[in-house]
Parts: sequence; structure tokens; C-alpha cells
Amino acid sequence: MNAPTYDPSLFTGLSAFPLTPLKDEAIDEDAFIGLIERLVLAGVDSITALGSTGSYAYLNLDERARVSEVAVESALDIPVFIGVGALRTRDVLDNVASAESAGAQGLLLAPVSYQPLTEDEVFALFRTVAESTDLPVVVYDNPGTTHFTFTTELYSRLAGLDGVASIKIPGAPASPAGWDERIGEIRAAIGSEVTIGISGDAHGAEGLIAGCDAWYTAVGGTIPEPMLEITRAAELGNAQLARELSAELQPLWDLFTEFGGSLRVTAAIAEHLGLVGADTLPLPVRDLDAAAKRKVAEVADNLDLG
Amino acid sequence: MNAPTYDPSLFTGLSAFPLTPLKDEAIDEDAFIGLIERLVLAGVDSITALGSTGSYAYLNLDERARVSEVAVESALDIPVFIGVGALRTRDVLDNVASAESAGAQGLLLAPVSYQPLTEDEVFALFRTVAESTDLPVVVYDNPGTTHFTFTTELYSRLAGLDGVASIKIPGAPASPAGWDERIGEIRAAIGSEVTIGISGDAHGAEGLIAGCDAWYTAVGGTIPEPMLEITRAAELGNAQLARELSAELQPLWDLFTEFGGSLRVTAAIAEHLGLVGADTLPLPVRDLDAAAKRKVAEVADNLDLG
Repeated sequence: MNAPTYDPSLFTGLSAFPLTPLKDEAIDEDAFIGLIERLVLAGVDSITALGSTGSYAYLNLDERARVSEVAVESALDIPVFIGVGALRTRDVLDNVASAESAGAQGLLLAPVSYQPLTEDEVFALFRTVAESTDLPVVVYDNPGTTHFTFTTELYSRLAGLDGVASIKIPGAPASPAGWDERIGEIRAAIGSEVTIGISGDAHGAEGLIAGCDAWYTAVGGTIPEPMLEITRAAELGNAQLARELSAELQPLWDLFTEFGGSLRVTAAIAEHLGLVGADTLPLPVRDLDAAAKRKVAEVADNLDLG
Repeated sequence: MNAPTYDPSLFTGLSAFPLTPLKDEAIDEDAFIGLIERLVLAGVDSITALGSTGSYAYLNLDERARVSEVAVESALDIPVFIGVGALRTRDVLDNVASAESAGAQGLLLAPVSYQPLTEDEVFALFRTVAESTDLPVVVYDNPGTTHFTFTTELYSRLAGLDGVASIKIPGAPASPAGWDERIGEIRAAIGSEVTIGISGDAHGAEGLIAGCDAWYTAVGGTIPEPMLEITRAAELGNAQLARELSAELQPLWDLFTEFGGSLRVTAAIAEHLGLVGADTLPLPVRDLDAAAKRKVAEVADNLDLG
């Protein structure tokens, strides 16, 4: 199979990760379409549906096919990437097929694990997928959920696969010099053709300033504007402004720390903004409790989010 | 709903966890039946199908229903427990229903997680399941695969649920005194009606000697006899013999350490014994490589396993 051809700029800028809202355990399509339309109006660079924030791991193959279709239909001319990860390679390949059918322009693939996976197993998974599709693949490194830890050496091997287009790296607390060093190390390992995207929203600004090409943002799938302002400031080389804008959002980043990550907080923000209903997450994952939701709403109001 | 009624001795002794062998990505039913029949002939106290060793997390709902049926049919009068864990509560409940239909006598439930779960979410999951079925439930604490860490306090809350019958605790390196202390602490927390089962096969003997009621054994699903000897020695109060028998198997325990756990080693032993074919595990999980398989075969032959 020939190397996939795609515009490398596809995997730059802000990629927004919408929730996949549920209602009575089924996909709330109206709410999902509303979220996608917000992202289109805000002018995000791309939309990644069925990321971690989109609860991909909890949905069955039919639900994932349907979400892919709705995302692509609703996104108009904004490129849509689809998360295809699953515990079993067989299911990953089914998700790849449904994403292709839906008209996705890229795939996001995480090495979801139950049995801890070896580096060779993860490499073989990505090779299998890359060989099965013409769509470019984003390597999704999210150890907090997949429980697989990538090495820089594995990034390098994966970047050598035809079709691997971008690597989504986890955020981490680091100094600006620490970020420069880390991004430089990854860049040296993967070359110049594969983009690097930062995740971990509190670290988006520092990642972009240090040279990441993209911000794969979870909360930006629900409140895109503030994340777009940070992204554009960084893209224009205005590191000071990007840092200031991110610092203004510190109360939001603090909520993520306080409430165990961005998912439940993002769902609470979306509910507060009237974009989704209560109990929008897949059980056993539950909404924040009432007191926490009030705190989230207060922060959202104070920061004028939404 | 009334409290489930069951014979508390159900969850004592040796519960053997067979592989669910695959062949070209489908369930190899003949091989699976062969494994179950070995366990019946060996006289295990119970069989837990679709545990971690049975690759439950990788199989779809239909496959799991079928494996449950085949396990119960093949086990004759040996009680069969079925692993019902899944990332989503909806799927767990479907698995509970199929295990009931198959005639299982108990359920094994692990809090499989992608998004890290809170204690309250895990408690609610177990309550939901316990309220949905009359079958007794084994709490499956396996942080290496589920990435959820139970506290002793949570054990205590769960033991208070009608229907929770046993807690399967992970093995860990500890001195005999350390084991005594740990089991005493758990026993004090959960009371006398819920049994404690040890997993982590290298620690089976110490766990039983320290007062665990059951050994939930992964490798014992493929080679039951040596694990039964250890179990019976411990049950007869002969700690010295149980320790000696376990110490004789040290080369086997060392393989688990060397090759990242028991699953791939157990599959290699089963292949060496002609019980399953090659590539019996669900991709992306792969067989050990040829050199490792030779090493496993050598240990199996030296220890006269099988």
C-alpha cells in the first residue's frame, strides 16, 4: 500500500474533543450535534470525535459508527478525526472501517489495555492499523487512561510507519525550559514530518510555546473560544499573551486537579451551559455531585466561559 | 430483593481460571471444552470462566454468553462462576443476564476502568449488580489490569452489600507475618461471612496459610494438580508442606516475573501441552516469542507440569 497522502497542516492548530453526551444510556444525538455546531461556529481547526472526552471506550461498535457519521455530517468543512481505539485489535479495525465510511479525515488511536502491553505489541497494533487504511493516524499517548507508557524510542519507531501523522503527547507540569527540552527530544526522535500535539489542557499554552504543532484539547470541545485565543497567540509567536490567557484560566485548571481530571468537570460545564443534560456520562462514570457542580458553575460564570 | 442464598463453601478452596483460547480470532470451543474437562477430572472446587486469564475484557457480549454456556455445560457438577466485568455498566448487566441464563452459580466482577473511577462509583457499580441478580458476587481486586485500587474501607462497604460473597485480593510479596497482618486486617473489615480469596499464583500458598478461604488461580486453570496439592496441604493445616510445594514451583513463578505476568506464560504452557494452538490470545496481546516459549517449555518439562 502506498503511503497515505494528506495535507500535513491537518494535524496542526486546535483540535477540539467534544463530549459524546448520553441520555438514558443512549447517544443524545441532538446534544452532540449542538456541540459540533458550536465548534464549527467557533472556527476550530479540526474536531476529534470519540476521544477520551467523547467516551469512545464505553460505546459499542454501532454507537461509534453512528457518532462518526453524525460528527462528519455536522462538521461541514471542518476536518473530523475519529478515535478508533479498543481493547481488541479486531474491534479497532471495525472502528477504522466505520470511520472511513463516515468520511473521517484522520484516526486517533490509543493502545487501550487491560493486560499490560509490551512495546512490540503496541507497535504491531499501530502497524496493523496503518496497513489497513489510507487515513492518517494520530498516536494517542494517554497513560492516565490507557495505562501504557510510551518511550521516546517507541515514538520514533511509530513515526517511521507510513500513515502515522501526529503524536498526541500527555501534558505534565514542567518549566518552560523543561518543555523546550522535552519537545526538542521528541522532535529529534520523530523527525519533521510528524506533528506533535499537546494534550492535558492546563499545559496547552506551554506545549504550543515550546513547539507543539497542535493542541488536542478536551475542554476546548465544549468551550472552544478561550482555547482558540491561546492557540492563536502561540501561533503568532506571542508567548507572553498565550501564557497570560492560560493563567487567567487557572481556576478552571484547578478544577481538573480537584475533581480527578477534565471529563467530569467538562460535562458539568456543558450541563451548566445548557448544552447537555445531567447524567450525560456512561455509567459507572458518574456526574460530579451537586456541591462540586455548583463550584464548577461558579468558576464557569466568573471566567465567563461559554 | 431478598439476600441471595448460597452455600458459603462455594467460595472456598481452589477456583481454577481457564484460558478462553482463540483460533483465527474466534473462540476455539473444542480447546476450551478440553480445558474445562481437565479441571473437572482434576477435581477443582470451582471453575471461574472469563476471568482475566479467560480474556473476558476482549470478548463481545455474544462471545461471553457462549463461553458461559459452554463452561457450565462442560463442568458437570463443578460450580462455575462467570466474569461479568466490562467498562460500561450497561454491558456488565448484559453479561450478568447471560451468566444467569447459562446456569452460573456465581459472578466475578472487576471495576474495569478507562476513566479512573472513584470509590463511590465503584461501590455504586457493585450495588447496581448486586441488586440486579440473585447470584452471589465475587469482588475482583486486580489493580494491575483494572487500574483501580481498593481500600480496606471499600472492601468493608462492599462486604455489607447483600450478595457480595467473596473478595479476590491481589498477591504481593510479603513475609508470613505480613500476610497474617494483612488478612487479619481484611477479615476485621469484612466480617466472617464473606470469604477472602488470594490471587497472584506465586503468593497462593502464603495467602492460604495466612487464612484466605480460597485460591483464585490463573495458572491452575491450565495445570490444576500442583495448585490443588498446595491448596489441600494448606487446608489440612500443613503450612510447611504447602510452602515446600510452592517453593518447588519457583521456576514457574520466576517466569511470571520475567514475562510480565501469568497470562502469556500460561498460554505458552497450554500450547506446549497441546491443549491450545499458537496465537490463542486476543490481539493486540501476542504470544511469547519463540525463545521465551522454549524457556517456558523447559521449565514445564523440568517441573513435570501437566
